[in-house]
Amino acid sequence: MKKLKLICTHCGEKYDIESIYFRCSHCNEPLELEEVQSGRINQTAHLKQTMMERYQDFFPFLEIDSSFSLGEGFTPLIPSRIAKEDLNINNLYFKNETVNPTWSFKDRGTVVGMQHAIKLGYKKIGTVSTGNMAVSVAAYGSRAGLETFVFVDKNIAPEKLNPIAIHKPHLIKVDGNYGDLYYETLEIGKEKDIYFINSDQPYRVEGSKAIAFEICEQLNFVVPDYVVVPTSAGGNIRGIEKGFREFKNAGLIDKLPKIICAQASGCSPIYNAFITEKDTISRIEHPNTIAHAIENPYPPSGNEVLRMVKKNDSLCVAVTDEEIIHAQAQLAKEGLFGQPASAVPLAAVKKLKESGRIKESDHIVCIVTGSGLKYTSALEKHHLTSLEAKMENLRDFLK
Amino acid sequence: MKKLKLICTHCGEKYDIESIYFRCSHCNEPLELEEVQSGRINQTAHLKQTMMERYQDFFPFLEIDSSFSLGEGFTPLIPSRIAKEDLNINNLYFKNETVNPTWSFKDRGTVVGMQHAIKLGYKKIGTVSTGNMAVSVAAYGSRAGLETFVFVDKNIAPEKLNPIAIHKPHLIKVDGNYGDLYYETLEIGKEKDIYFINSDQPYRVEGSKAIAFEICEQLNFVVPDYVVVPTSAGGNIRGIEKGFREFKNAGLIDKLPKIICAQASGCSPIYNAFITEKDTISRIEHPNTIAHAIENPYPPSGNEVLRMVKKNDSLCVAVTDEEIIHAQAQLAKEGLFGQPASAVPLAAVKKLKESGRIKESDHIVCIVTGSGLKYTSALEKHHLTSLEAKMENLRDFLK
Repeated sequence: MKKLKLICTHCGEKYDIESIYFRCSHCNEPLELEEVQSGRINQTAHLKQTMMERYQDFFPFLEIDSSFSLGEGFTPLIPSRIAKEDLNINNLYFKNETVNPTWSFKDRGTVVGMQHAIKLGYKKIGTVSTGNMAVSVAAYGSRAGLETFVFVDKNIAPEKLNPIAIHKPHLIKVDGNYGDLYYETLEIGKEKDIYFINSDQPYRVEGSKAIAFEICEQLNFVVPDYVVVPTSAGGNIRGIEKGFREFKNAGLIDKLPKIICAQASGCSPIYNAFITEKDTISRIEHPNTIAHAIENPYPPSGNEVLRMVKKNDSLCVAVTDEEIIHAQAQLAKEGLFGQPASAVPLAAVKKLKESGRIKESDHIVCIVTGSGLKYTSALEKHHLTSLEAKMENLRDFLK
Repeated sequence: MKKLKLICTHCGEKYDIESIYFRCSHCNEPLELEEVQSGRINQTAHLKQTMMERYQDFFPFLEIDSSFSLGEGFTPLIPSRIAKEDLNINNLYFKNETVNPTWSFKDRGTVVGMQHAIKLGYKKIGTVSTGNMAVSVAAYGSRAGLETFVFVDKNIAPEKLNPIAIHKPHLIKVDGNYGDLYYETLEIGKEKDIYFINSDQPYRVEGSKAIAFEICEQLNFVVPDYVVVPTSAGGNIRGIEKGFREFKNAGLIDKLPKIICAQASGCSPIYNAFITEKDTISRIEHPNTIAHAIENPYPPSGNEVLRMVKKNDSLCVAVTDEEIIHAQAQLAKEGLFGQPASAVPLAAVKKLKESGRIKESDHIVCIVTGSGLKYTSALEKHHLTSLEAKMENLRDFLK
């Protein structure tokens, strides 16, 4: 491990990098790895490099073990074809995280968290999730031959359960308050020697930095004006923001983009606190949105995202399910099929353009976080149609 | 377009590269683009390059239009963790095609086919498919703003229909002999100015070459002994084989691997002809396998695959549904979740190792063609389980 400290995002208290204390023992806010101040990209032309090897200077490990990599990262940045016409925005891009090994951005954080776990000698890893993260940790845990514990909500749908179960983790449906389970597992992890890579765990946050690194490379180091991130627990948006900060420290870019926190109106605790100018978030009692992947009623990094957005002079947005469905269809028009949560940034951009906050000339990147195949029943909302024809009548039919 | 001809794979008759005759008018066998004799890899270190740009010397276009690329290709080659222990094979790799933009290898062929269609000035494209190819053509067609026709079998399951329909092609369920539909669309295409990118269309075959190119790069140009390909229509295996041939022509590799045609016992027309030493395939009357993605009863490139396998001194293998399900579980243990068809190569390797045809020291690459999320109901065959616990009892539970 490099000589870095874990620092409380709120009070600044420092912790040892080799510890598995992931929240501050004083204020219970999330810890974060000390900001990297310099480094360079290890640019090579071959197809064998891993994400962690390319950006090793910015990760906290002296040596990278790539033996359990599944080829995460290096996802495409796709320019919008229709934003000019549809939204009157000249430069809109989609960072397509759906082509990661388990088809969501989560793999980036999982591989970094596991790197830490394995360096510390852990033989057991775990997570608390009902969706993308559960699949990711189950796949990588199996890949590395580690005993893997996945705690899910007891009401999880069978269609979501089986793609986790196929990797044969200890898969446990838990009856109880799901929000509390996050904190409970941090304690259980210490007692039972299980390394938990939960949603906003500091090393998982480190993994998300690479999204920012790649965007910089893909835009020839011209920093976009806005990066729009679907936000649930808050780990991904924090990582992306930290990535830009560190590339700026290293002199690779000359300014920071504004990072927009995008939520679904049916579960928008961070947005709610932001518009009412509170310093802390409040729990959403009855979350209800089609964007299940970001339906966290009490995000563990919610307060830190609030602080970050303010410091970054940025903003939060919330969009309705109707706006999300519309944006999912627009994404599909671009050739991208994202799960509903992944359409939230595009819906947010439309809203901000209409309100005048985003200008025609702004350069904007939307993060498309996970594959639409993860939740195909959402497609029922689109009322999709097909036609029927007999083969012998096909020619008439096409007239 | 470069100065190349389309050549009949059987009789050698030549056709103009700008034509859309994709089968020989004399013998009705598939056409193939003339073999490239020299070229180099356009190796760059940046993350913006597309597959067609990297291997442009080996594609038939003088200039590449990357505006409708979705970032296809550059998929990881993952070394097996458990093959040594499980199969007593030292060097087994998985080429993970599930991380393409629509989560199957089809995107490679689609982007090359569309390149040709657009260069010829077509405004309409189409395909005949019930699965991976339908989604791929629908997504890329929408991406490029082309009118897109997708013909599917009338009995397609709704869960497969909606991920095609979300891209809003003209989606037509056809009542009639599905095998005949392939040939029918070639005629309709000429009449109605629709460029059909069907399963083994020559430009789609060109796209699959890049799988071979990347494997060569990822193995440092040390050619594997075997490459095992799940085979349905025959387009993908033909492309992969042609890719190795062309890299050998260009002096980038010094020998050819043996390309193994792997099929499901429930629908194995090429394997059947191979073991009975026939020169042509016969139609399977009642195909029945869990590997639906390779359930083509009368593959349009079947005869050419037979010729190719013989010339290549290689072989065909067929595996049962039970062996496929077992291999799908083994893949998941490696961290990869492939659809049943994608597990066929691993099942074939196991069989060939047990029969002594494959040796412990052989280097083998299995092509993992499409994501397991495409067909999650197959997971019911795995009898997957989970446990239940109350939160207050979690500690006792983990003892």
